[in-house]
Amino acid sequence: MKVSDYIADFIARQGVKKIFMLSGSGSVYLDDSIAGKNLDFICVRNEATAPMMAESYARLTGKLGVACITSGPGGTNAVSGLSEAWVDSAPVLVISGQVDKKHTCHKANIKNLRSLGIQEIDIIPIVNSLTKYAQMVEDPDSIRYHLEKAVYLAKSGRPGPVWLDIPLDVQSSIIDEKMLEGWNPEASEKDLDKNKLKEAVMLLAESKRPLIIAGQGIRIAKSLDEFKNLIEKLKIPVILSRLGQDMLPFSYRYNLGHGGMKGLRYTKLIMSKSDLILSLGSRLAVPFVSDALSESAKIIMVDIDEAELKKPSIRVDLQINSDVKEFIEGLLKEDVKVDASDWLKDCQGYKESYPLAGPARNPIDLYYFVSRLDALSKENSVFVSDAGSSYYVTGQALRFEKGQREITSGAFASMGLAIPLAIGSASADPSRQILAITGDGSLELNIQELKTMSSCGLDIKLFVINNGGYVSIRNTQDALCGGRHVGSGQAEGLNFKKIADAFELPYESIQNYEEVDGKITEILNKKGPVFIEVVSDNCQKIIEPIKQI
Amino acid sequence: MKVSDYIADFIARQGVKKIFMLSGSGSVYLDDSIAGKNLDFICVRNEATAPMMAESYARLTGKLGVACITSGPGGTNAVSGLSEAWVDSAPVLVISGQVDKKHTCHKANIKNLRSLGIQEIDIIPIVNSLTKYAQMVEDPDSIRYHLEKAVYLAKSGRPGPVWLDIPLDVQSSIIDEKMLEGWNPEASEKDLDKNKLKEAVMLLAESKRPLIIAGQGIRIAKSLDEFKNLIEKLKIPVILSRLGQDMLPFSYRYNLGHGGMKGLRYTKLIMSKSDLILSLGSRLAVPFVSDALSESAKIIMVDIDEAELKKPSIRVDLQINSDVKEFIEGLLKEDVKVDASDWLKDCQGYKESYPLAGPARNPIDLYYFVSRLDALSKENSVFVSDAGSSYYVTGQALRFEKGQREITSGAFASMGLAIPLAIGSASADPSRQILAITGDGSLELNIQELKTMSSCGLDIKLFVINNGGYVSIRNTQDALCGGRHVGSGQAEGLNFKKIADAFELPYESIQNYEEVDGKITEILNKKGPVFIEVVSDNCQKIIEPIKQI
Ligand SMILES: Cc1ncc(C[n+]2csc(CCOP(=O)(O)OP(=O)(O)O)c2C)c(N)n1
Ligand SMILES: Cc1ncc(C[n+]2csc(CCOP(=O)(O)OP(=O)(O)O)c2C)c(N)n1
Repeated sequence: MKVSDYIADFIARQGVKKIFMLSGSGSVYLDDSIAGKNLDFICVRNEATAPMMAESYARLTGKLGVACITSGPGGTNAVSGLSEAWVDSAPVLVISGQVDKKHTCHKANIKNLRSLGIQEIDIIPIVNSLTKYAQMVEDPDSIRYHLEKAVYLAKSGRPGPVWLDIPLDVQSSIIDEKMLEGWNPEASEKDLDKNKLKEAVMLLAESKRPLIIAGQGIRIAKSLDEFKNLIEKLKIPVILSRLGQDMLPFSYRYNLGHGGMKGLRYTKLIMSKSDLILSLGSRLAVPFVSDALSESAKIIMVDIDEAELKKPSIRVDLQINSDVKEFIEGLLKEDVKVDASDWLKDCQGYKESYPLAGPARNPIDLYYFVSRLDALSKENSVFVSDAGSSYYVTGQALRFEKGQREITSGAFASMGLAIPLAIGSASADPSRQILAITGDGSLELNIQELKTMSSCGLDIKLFVINNGGYVSIRNTQDALCGGRHVGSGQAEGLNFKKIADAFELPYESIQNYEEVDGKITEILNKKGPVFIEVVSDNCQKIIEPIKQI
Repeated sequence: MKVSDYIADFIARQGVKKIFMLSGSGSVYLDDSIAGKNLDFICVRNEATAPMMAESYARLTGKLGVACITSGPGGTNAVSGLSEAWVDSAPVLVISGQVDKKHTCHKANIKNLRSLGIQEIDIIPIVNSLTKYAQMVEDPDSIRYHLEKAVYLAKSGRPGPVWLDIPLDVQSSIIDEKMLEGWNPEASEKDLDKNKLKEAVMLLAESKRPLIIAGQGIRIAKSLDEFKNLIEKLKIPVILSRLGQDMLPFSYRYNLGHGGMKGLRYTKLIMSKSDLILSLGSRLAVPFVSDALSESAKIIMVDIDEAELKKPSIRVDLQINSDVKEFIEGLLKEDVKVDASDWLKDCQGYKESYPLAGPARNPIDLYYFVSRLDALSKENSVFVSDAGSSYYVTGQALRFEKGQREITSGAFASMGLAIPLAIGSASADPSRQILAITGDGSLELNIQELKTMSSCGLDIKLFVINNGGYVSIRNTQDALCGGRHVGSGQAEGLNFKKIADAFELPYESIQNYEEVDGKITEILNKKGPVFIEVVSDNCQKIIEPIKQI
């Protein structure tokens, strides 16, 4: 059988139903096999977005996400999406086409040779620091080995992207499927250190004001149920990281919502008062922790990624380098003596005394808008956001009461992700409605994919916040550069009605707060993609968490 | 003075008049200083295009091109443009903003730490293999050193991109300009080996059918005049590489035009008959040489980049690793006994007997269209092309009789370059009219920059070849995959009139060959940007060079 057919079969066996690709001569056999093996594929309009779509596909399905692109610029274009999957821990396999082996810089191995074959570059050193595994497949008979190893690494431990570069002569080689060597992971997984578990139990017992900080690692480790059991057992308040904020409904009594630099108003206050942080599957990122924690608080951090435990920005008292599921299961079996009921009440008090107020006024306040969208959203919808104000406001105003999920750029808050993440989400699960929110600035970066959205007819409602350009940057420039606005001006806005029309999307607009509810209801009841311009406040300010009352 | 101000001043001192940027909090001081120092800047709508614009700016002005972007995704987005500058030898300086030093993975130096600060990634390992110099500037007092070294390396030898990553705390540091350490290149440039020069003279004297292959290295080395003198002295025919094809008018008697895999029909024939190739400032790329050269031909290759001389795809008899200008000057002083008059006549005969015929018919043939555009173009215009058919056809049909230039993607023929390269070209020299030709497929990749084009009001005429999607890929799939068309279909075309309108560009269309001349004349006389849809043959075939008659 042909190597490219083997690859397509292998991907299908992973349960992957959709591949994101852009065709090319360098990937011609791969493209052909993908179609031939009845794998469904979505053609993107710039390779940059293929790994982004694959990432949201992976995050929603819990499966592998796959992107297939061509050599040279195909690969370099994909770097931006790849880096998202890297920092946000998504199991994405990128397969790139490559010229015949003999014309690759990779094989030539001459220092600083820039390009050899037609449309060729050695992509491996470029993506190496952004992947868990990146290899050019030289020997057709090694294809099974590379695929098995790559996919295992992508999905195990802290997930992340992997990259296989397949020369044309390898793609089209004929192999004997039965003779291929496979790959087996080494047995030694990181076992939970029992002593550390005991120490955690002790620290919990000593603590007066314990706080769980929970991140998407819990979902990735498929331990959401165990996590919920643990909260019920410990009765400790929980603050969620951005990528973890959809794990619990906001109304849940132990859930204090999303924390961090742009978290809910009272969360930093609570973090600073806590005397014991138990971090589960959150990397305790710089923008999350900032200066919130008290110097005297003890910190227990459970993370499968050793690098996160060792990083200089956080002082961890008890580093537990283990699968978070194993840790939670371990803790569930322990007799933990912790009584945090007063502290919990305090926390719940803060939560109640700082309700998120989105004023009903014109021009539309984003908090108001997002809160109404949240309230009117259907069960199991997926929220997708983009950079700028929409990123921060969705981080504070979404409530996840009805099984909704959020797919967004975690570590980077990159501009331009909303459309590709929405497309990936919609193709992962057509039964979920996708509510994507982007800014007039962020929209532009991958605006070409509006056409992918319309031609695939996906159930994506794309809300475009028209607030006259880069409000977030104007706010930063006001703070740091005496209000000089450079490259963040309001002058050059797009005409969104015409944009929607040009990309063949139905257009709606929401111009004032009085029509927000009616329009949203109407729009969410429509079938297929809709482009909605939301004219809102050009001076939107983001609520900042407070540390002291 | 502030480091960011120092950087802006330094760039201004390089004679750079335009910077290509996208603002961000991570580059906030850089952005502010660029504006404050009265450097003109163009705001792009995706960082991917900033280095592309900087590249065409550099190639047209002979100066440095500069892009300024923010941390994290700002940098990773820019990788695609960066890689173009790398493979096509353009002196581009990318300056990226970065978070405070203490929050960089670069400083933390922990293996596989994915991201530490807000919107942070270590960009250096990603861009390292794509640059001549890539550094994070840690010490504010080293800024002069890094800038001088980076710019020197970008412009010297074989030019290429360089990258400086500047943390926020460094950007805003106050330095004493007078105390800064500078950087001086080591004296030892590669000197021309006199023995090799003599050997070249001997080989020329022995040759019956010598052929010069000339590439953009000649222009980069600022030796175009010397090159012309050399041709007049040697009276040898010349074939031009793609990036060198605008160096001589096609009608010039020694010029046989553009060669290579998709070169002019007779050029491969001539290459295969030659018994001595003298390659000047061309890398003799795989797609250029393919199987054209005779086994017995001697090859002299003059290249400043040692890696190109050593590459496995070409057997070079006499490797001359020197500045091409120095070599040409050396050769001009030698007494070269070469008489190629009969051979020259043969070559000229082939040139005459294979005129490029673009049939006047409907649907419009691309050769016809490009030939007419060429004929009607104004003096000193700049042609810009994109991937696909337009790339190959412009490579065969342009004539450069009136001081025109071409700016295109050389090694990669990447999709999506036409608009950014056109914008960079137009801002390099507003006195030149830009004639950009793109395909309906290639247009999409950086379609967001249509808005940059319109809002800057540049004199760019953008011809969009509507031929129902990816013709080139359909042709490849016909050849290699039994005609199965995957991801190259005709179904999902854009409505270009609406696209032009949405991005606020005047729209014109050319629907049949009869109106080509009239419309082109009219359009080229308009001021400012115009978007022109050219409805053309959905089955456009590319003329293939022949090796034998
Ligand atoms: C790829 C990328 N480049 C630059 C930035 C820096 N940045 C953050 S927010 C922002 C402006 C976003 O504008 P818009 O989407 O209109 O949202 P607004 O801030 O106006 O609400 C910019 C430029 C980024 N996050 N990502
Ligand atoms: C970034 C990038 N991705 C993929 C390719 C492979 N490729 C070469 S030509 C082509 C189709 C170009 O379509 P279009 O611009 O419409 O030109 P046509 O071939 O139809 O004339 C593709 C996909 C490429 N050159 N660059």
